[in-house]
Amino acid sequence: MEFRLIDRLQALTAQARDDVRLGIGDDAALLAVPDGQQLAVAIDTLVEGVHFPVGTAPADVGWKALAVNLSDLAAMGATPAWALLALTLPAQPADAQQARVDGLAEGFAQLARRHGVALVGGDTTRGPFVLSVAVHGFVPPGQALRREGARVGDLVFVTGTLGDAAAGLQRLAVADDPDEENRRAVLRERLNRPTPRVAAGLALRGRATACIDVSDGLLADLGHVCTASGVGAELEASTLPLSSALLGCCDKAAARDYALSGGDDYELCFTVAPARAGELQADLGRLGCGATRIGRIVAGAGVRVRGEDGAWRASGRAGWDHFPDETLPG
Amino acid sequence: MEFRLIDRLQALTAQARDDVRLGIGDDAALLAVPDGQQLAVAIDTLVEGVHFPVGTAPADVGWKALAVNLSDLAAMGATPAWALLALTLPAQPADAQQARVDGLAEGFAQLARRHGVALVGGDTTRGPFVLSVAVHGFVPPGQALRREGARVGDLVFVTGTLGDAAAGLQRLAVADDPDEENRRAVLRERLNRPTPRVAAGLALRGRATACIDVSDGLLADLGHVCTASGVGAELEASTLPLSSALLGCCDKAAARDYALSGGDDYELCFTVAPARAGELQADLGRLGCGATRIGRIVAGAGVRVRGEDGAWRASGRAGWDHFPDETLPG
Repeated sequence: MEFRLIDRLQALTAQARDDVRLGIGDDAALLAVPDGQQLAVAIDTLVEGVHFPVGTAPADVGWKALAVNLSDLAAMGATPAWALLALTLPAQPADAQQARVDGLAEGFAQLARRHGVALVGGDTTRGPFVLSVAVHGFVPPGQALRREGARVGDLVFVTGTLGDAAAGLQRLAVADDPDEENRRAVLRERLNRPTPRVAAGLALRGRATACIDVSDGLLADLGHVCTASGVGAELEASTLPLSSALLGCCDKAAARDYALSGGDDYELCFTVAPARAGELQADLGRLGCGATRIGRIVAGAGVRVRGEDGAWRASGRAGWDHFPDETLPG
Repeated sequence: MEFRLIDRLQALTAQARDDVRLGIGDDAALLAVPDGQQLAVAIDTLVEGVHFPVGTAPADVGWKALAVNLSDLAAMGATPAWALLALTLPAQPADAQQARVDGLAEGFAQLARRHGVALVGGDTTRGPFVLSVAVHGFVPPGQALRREGARVGDLVFVTGTLGDAAAGLQRLAVADDPDEENRRAVLRERLNRPTPRVAAGLALRGRATACIDVSDGLLADLGHVCTASGVGAELEASTLPLSSALLGCCDKAAARDYALSGGDDYELCFTVAPARAGELQADLGRLGCGATRIGRIVAGAGVRVRGEDGAWRASGRAGWDHFPDETLPG
């Protein structure tokens, strides 16, 4: 009975887009890509108990399922347009299921409306609680932000603050201090409702030399940029952008560990030639998305971090990963 | 460690397509839709134990995950181009996981190569055994096959044979008769390796008035066409195309029930004006995909079936469905 569930989602996410020539309800949607634009497409999955804790509010799950995908489009410098949703849900009593579906739809729709994204297709079946979202965006040919363009001498920046989501995942005893509880709520909000940096990604087009979104952790993701670009990176630990909420919940060393290796930040890490850095940073600030210089691109390979004591350490921790190495095929 | 798993899939499914400007490996793929073509997109999910039995060969699962999606494109008359795969897999010992991933990739790739489909994106994470595939195809504006175009007086056709997959799902005791075992193997092959009717869908473009793929069962899916078109349909039970394998495994009444209400056929059910039916049927025959006239479109609503005794029965069974009504929200 996929149609009725998808109908509920659709009702909340309907967007009047001229480029949707046929929306949900037939065997496939029919879409018109604007002349002179390439299509950017990505797919990402959230699994209950793996990507979000059991008991997460359905509205947060709906938001996050779209957010992590829009973050991929942002990292390419693409303008979001359309989404597909594949949802499997366990059997539940009717009222519990209705509440869950309504929540999912509400959270998904809130973010979809913010970015003018139309839900154009879906599939809902019985199964474990898993959501896969595919997103489609537009980017002019040759202007997409790639991972492979970082050059020796480029500066490394990151938007927003790092480590909040990873810290928000920690289950801590209730604090006596209401301020402490407030800080933790901020961190959980960062975990559950990540902000895809779509406008920042568009501002980076034609200016950043490489870009990636920080989903697996800064060291891991910047490592991907270095590998793709054939370069290394040096970071200054003292420059990592840490939120006051994070610093209020743990000491500075722990906060930096979260920032370097924690996942789920969905900030953009990008590289830019020094001559263009100042203007770009100012433009991002005007968009309400500050960016912080955290290091530079060097010859070599891998990412290393210099502590405040001046000692370098190589990245041993590679961010968290859903498939531990020991279970990998091949 | 999604990249290594996706790499394995990619190695087997790589297609040299000029329209893939950037494939797997960055935050999103970059794709060029040909000038003058609309994009047809669909997404479908397979869940272990729901859409395929536990123990199904991984290669069959990989094939079927793509096949059910290509069937949606076929039903729109679209030419397949690109696919995205979201795969969640439970933890397993390394050798078992390698065998499963290799099998999935092999089956997926066999069908992808047959239709020139490039895998352009993927996401692999730990979780239950669930596959979501999104597919993209091209169709000239105004030429897509829709559900809403059936008109009173049109003839109803279906490609291939019906009911085989549903019968193949039955777990029967081993037969003494080797011919019986062979027939059952044919039915299981129809269940596990459905053939998306892509060439037939292209041949129907501009000729069929409506089209749908038979995934939930003929009565249910033709019912969708009738609802979308504001018409009814009358079928003749005696004309339902039944395979010799099916008729060799059950009596004719049971075979017709499978054909009317069984799911997973992935044949195309379409309507066509009588004046165009003969030539179209001949063209489909030349494509190696015979089509059988099974009824006609009438004024009214719903689907009814006339038995060989001349008595009509309305469609009470609406095909199988993953969400039983009693658990539905709203």
